[in-house]
Amino acid sequence: MNPDITRERENATFNVEKLTHILDGGIEKTKRRREIESLVISDPDFQSEDLNFLSRSERYDAAVKKSAQMILKLREYGISDPEEIYCYKSCVHRGRSEPLDLHLAMFLPTLLNQASPEQMETFFIPAWNLEIIGTYAQTEMGHGTHLRGLETTATYDPATQEFVLNSPTITSIKWWPGGLGKTSNHAIVLAQLHTQGKCHGLHAFIVPLRSMNTHIPLPGVVVGDIGPKFGFDEVDNGYLKLENVRIPREHMLMKYAKVEADGTYVKPPSDKLTYGTMVFIRSMIVGEAGRALAKSCTIAIRYSSVRHQSEIRPGEPEPQIMDYQTQQYKLFPLLATAYAYKFVGQYMNDVYHRITGDISQGDFSELPELHALSAGLKAFTTWTASAGIEVCRMACGGHGYSRCSALPDIYVNFVPTCTYEGENTVMMLQTARFLIKSYRQASAGHQLSGIVSYLNESERSLQPQSVSSRPTVVNVNDLASLVEAYKLRAAKLVELAAKSIQQELQKRVSQEDAWNNSAIDLVRASDAHCHYVVVKLFAAKLGEIGDTGVHSVLSTLALLYALQGIQQHSGDFLQTGLLSVPQLSQVSQRLKELLAQLRPNAVALVDAFDYCDEMLNSVLGRYDGNVYEHMFEWARRSPLNKTEVHESYHKYLKPLQAKL
Amino acid sequence: MNPDITRERENATFNVEKLTHILDGGIEKTKRRREIESLVISDPDFQSEDLNFLSRSERYDAAVKKSAQMILKLREYGISDPEEIYCYKSCVHRGRSEPLDLHLAMFLPTLLNQASPEQMETFFIPAWNLEIIGTYAQTEMGHGTHLRGLETTATYDPATQEFVLNSPTITSIKWWPGGLGKTSNHAIVLAQLHTQGKCHGLHAFIVPLRSMNTHIPLPGVVVGDIGPKFGFDEVDNGYLKLENVRIPREHMLMKYAKVEADGTYVKPPSDKLTYGTMVFIRSMIVGEAGRALAKSCTIAIRYSSVRHQSEIRPGEPEPQIMDYQTQQYKLFPLLATAYAYKFVGQYMNDVYHRITGDISQGDFSELPELHALSAGLKAFTTWTASAGIEVCRMACGGHGYSRCSALPDIYVNFVPTCTYEGENTVMMLQTARFLIKSYRQASAGHQLSGIVSYLNESERSLQPQSVSSRPTVVNVNDLASLVEAYKLRAAKLVELAAKSIQQELQKRVSQEDAWNNSAIDLVRASDAHCHYVVVKLFAAKLGEIGDTGVHSVLSTLALLYALQGIQQHSGDFLQTGLLSVPQLSQVSQRLKELLAQLRPNAVALVDAFDYCDEMLNSVLGRYDGNVYEHMFEWARRSPLNKTEVHESYHKYLKPLQAKL
Repeated sequence: MNPDITRERENATFNVEKLTHILDGGIEKTKRRREIESLVISDPDFQSEDLNFLSRSERYDAAVKKSAQMILKLREYGISDPEEIYCYKSCVHRGRSEPLDLHLAMFLPTLLNQASPEQMETFFIPAWNLEIIGTYAQTEMGHGTHLRGLETTATYDPATQEFVLNSPTITSIKWWPGGLGKTSNHAIVLAQLHTQGKCHGLHAFIVPLRSMNTHIPLPGVVVGDIGPKFGFDEVDNGYLKLENVRIPREHMLMKYAKVEADGTYVKPPSDKLTYGTMVFIRSMIVGEAGRALAKSCTIAIRYSSVRHQSEIRPGEPEPQIMDYQTQQYKLFPLLATAYAYKFVGQYMNDVYHRITGDISQGDFSELPELHALSAGLKAFTTWTASAGIEVCRMACGGHGYSRCSALPDIYVNFVPTCTYEGENTVMMLQTARFLIKSYRQASAGHQLSGIVSYLNESERSLQPQSVSSRPTVVNVNDLASLVEAYKLRAAKLVELAAKSIQQELQKRVSQEDAWNNSAIDLVRASDAHCHYVVVKLFAAKLGEIGDTGVHSVLSTLALLYALQGIQQHSGDFLQTGLLSVPQLSQVSQRLKELLAQLRPNAVALVDAFDYCDEMLNSVLGRYDGNVYEHMFEWARRSPLNKTEVHESYHKYLKPLQAKL
Repeated sequence: MNPDITRERENATFNVEKLTHILDGGIEKTKRRREIESLVISDPDFQSEDLNFLSRSERYDAAVKKSAQMILKLREYGISDPEEIYCYKSCVHRGRSEPLDLHLAMFLPTLLNQASPEQMETFFIPAWNLEIIGTYAQTEMGHGTHLRGLETTATYDPATQEFVLNSPTITSIKWWPGGLGKTSNHAIVLAQLHTQGKCHGLHAFIVPLRSMNTHIPLPGVVVGDIGPKFGFDEVDNGYLKLENVRIPREHMLMKYAKVEADGTYVKPPSDKLTYGTMVFIRSMIVGEAGRALAKSCTIAIRYSSVRHQSEIRPGEPEPQIMDYQTQQYKLFPLLATAYAYKFVGQYMNDVYHRITGDISQGDFSELPELHALSAGLKAFTTWTASAGIEVCRMACGGHGYSRCSALPDIYVNFVPTCTYEGENTVMMLQTARFLIKSYRQASAGHQLSGIVSYLNESERSLQPQSVSSRPTVVNVNDLASLVEAYKLRAAKLVELAAKSIQQELQKRVSQEDAWNNSAIDLVRASDAHCHYVVVKLFAAKLGEIGDTGVHSVLSTLALLYALQGIQQHSGDFLQTGLLSVPQLSQVSQRLKELLAQLRPNAVALVDAFDYCDEMLNSVLGRYDGNVYEHMFEWARRSPLNKTEVHESYHKYLKPLQAKL
């Protein structure tokens, strides 16, 4: 064990294990998670060469191998709880995406939700047994965000009682679905349904893609891999071009909408049913933002405690780089952010499960708010976390660029969350739409409840102004007071965005143009709203924590999170009169004090995330801090070192020397 | 040609070719650059498969092949001007780093600067003819920033008149030098010189690494590749462990310092001689920041003009995504930044060449200022450009993640500039040291000249206060007035940082601790200083431009650049009383107007960067806008599509299906 990191752990002021239990959601959950991790770690079938040393085709191959093993073992061990499956899967693939992701997370659930009982009978068991390997093909080359713009067609032919599927244009080629390129033999294809000469919009169809015997693509099916990407080397994101592919009528998912044998179209009863899934996936992504940032902070903070460089005081030994104020200022606010997002993720998961209960009893009342909130929070957290991973990586200096640090992989595997499941700017505007609607309702005298209740007219007309006239009302040492400041900032920015729309309308432009011409303000308002929610939830979480030591260190983190946000957006707080110039200096001063205060607990705070070395897979982030020996050992194993002399020497350099 | 992009070009209000000449530095330079580009593009020896489809070893192989060809052809064509060599090399390797980079840019120049005449005779011609392939080994596994901390030793043995080189610890292993792993047979090694029982600090030694005949590592030399990285797949960054490696006394570079045969050490006359090279490399990096951002903007803006998505007005066709205000707000300020950095790079290059002339006449007076400025500007521009590349990439939605967009490559190949040639935070603090020193001189009554003259006591005591009391003095429509505001902000933040140090000293901490405890404020002051310099230089450039159309569009860009910076740092401008709250609203409003105003010129402004398709190598950034067909064609060529059925199906999936 590196003595520097041992000393760090000795200096911690709280019980790490207790904090781990809080993060896991209870002592039992910690125990079970560790059991599952050990199952995978000790399993010789899951040992493989470092993925960094493999070509893309080899990485895909290794992932398929692990996924196949995983399916067998989940059944062997009888792991069936969705959370535990997720945990096992994350361990096997070290948090990476894999070729069967969409089969498990989209194909099977879509069957469960949208297949009729007869279809369940036909498709579910073969899919469960991976005879049918499926994916979910929605996005097209030319169409992502705007579902109504999808061009793939499914035209009903009553003569044969079949649908004829086509990709009529180049832009209509399905593009991006995971597992589509090489792995799947079926896809649920989203297509515009045409019957009896009329288009009825998007519907889902089960389309066989490859022979069940030979895996060779079926006639009319042009399918393949979309080529190398930024990360996701293990996944065969694919393309799919359909050329007059005929499927039986029974291959349209018919639990809700139907096409009868003669071609008569029967409408579905409601279209709000898919909201729940979106909310669930987005709340998972928020948790993922917390995890990605937690991993990155673990690596950067442990490394900062064993790396020595330069000098603070001349003549003294080189200090740990964590002793530099600039290093603390890079890493500790991100550490606080990781905790904040983990708690927000927990909250969203809890609310989702509570609301799902309500929905099953027919109560949809909380869904629109949660739907809007989940969109914004997904964007807010993924943007910050992506940028934060890169800050962590660069805080490790040159070695952060080495694949052995794991940080490049964490980045490229996380950053797509900014784009998939709803492009972030679109998500922000979705939340803004809810905020503006709520603002207008409040302005019209309706009393709002829930998280947007701060938009109520009475509150707005009283508080921001009174604050503005006596700005010292915000106490920069008091978290509750800061939550209030964030709330009033959000209220003010929502109001500004609404006024911008109003001003545009006065120029006689249309509603839609007024909206687009105010989009910058709308995104800013959403951002402020989400920031408020995060600060509020972090503060609320403190109330649940009994242990004094843990409570104390988390309170420091929460205060750091809130104050750093104020410093970064000081313009907003000054502009809205929530803070005075002297208070801003106080904020800066207090921030520096908090960094110094957190310094002795930094390593313990990342230890509490409890990533074992096998899961973290980072030489820089090793628990024992013995970085350099292992970096050397890793490098010596890398492919270019398999021979002492690379063949290019004989092919090009030696002949060149002869010519010069 | 895609009709959307044709229409964009028709709507432009200025002459693109004229702007290209300005960017190149004159019509003749544009002509010559294009000639060199054609030489490479039309050369069948430089055609190769898409690098994205190759393994790392294949990419290294392809790069060595190209580099060897390049050396031959440079001589064949008689290209010898350093700028033209750089241009040819950039074309051959598409701006990527390559295995011979350090031989050309460090090994040969170090010989020229530090070898004695006898050493030049021995080493230069063999190195020129690539008999000797060299690299420059400075950084060690445990030591980067702090050169004095390097541990490699060179101990003189008078008995044999040799130096004995050793890597005494694991942290002393040389790590990162480009071309060290596989390509080079020699290295200039930086080591602590020991002779007659005394250490004389770092000196440079020419160390043979591999046999000149067989390329096999010599006894005592442990050398290899450091393994895969985030980008830089073409370069064999290497490690080097020296175990009692003996080299003749004449292998120490002895133009300045010397060790005589008996071991007597002779000191060098001055140590400021290396400043010039550092300044030059950093000014190159600033230009590189401009180019990387220019490429990224070219791709994102062209794609935004041909991509259609969603709707602004219901019932109308899907608009070009460039019509969304949020998209404009992402891309146009970055476009302005690319122009700003290109002009700053030009300026630094000019100043460097002017000062180099002065230095050769013994006048070092401007060097400290330029040295300090180049450090901060390197950090300022590389941070912004790196983040900006990612904004461009994500502005392309899902397709920005495909390697065919070229954006992932631009990012991973550019982002290391944040770390190499001086870690950015260290660079910012270096500039801060100069600013604080200047501030103290001014406070002591010395009259400063040059770019820091705004720190003069008289100016400071007059202007910021007077501005603060009448904030309307800033005219948000007048660039000169905004330059002034940036200047006063910098002055104020330097003052705040100086005061923070003062306050720390009053707590009886040491100078060094006071500095470290104020580091956040110091970085912020440097940042403001650099921002001021960039705005000022952009404004100054406008004065050189005669053409009305070009002048007009560049003025809009400069104003956008200045106003967006104010909006992003509105807290600073409010805090220092340089702007009032109502003015800030004006800034927001004006920004939106400028976005709309730039919209018709956006494509023409990126066309003016004049990246031909072969150099840009991006399907999304194609000049003709025909994105989708070529994306499909690219994907079909990718390695996973070489067979219809991947072998993993037979190895894992089919057996799995049999078991379930």
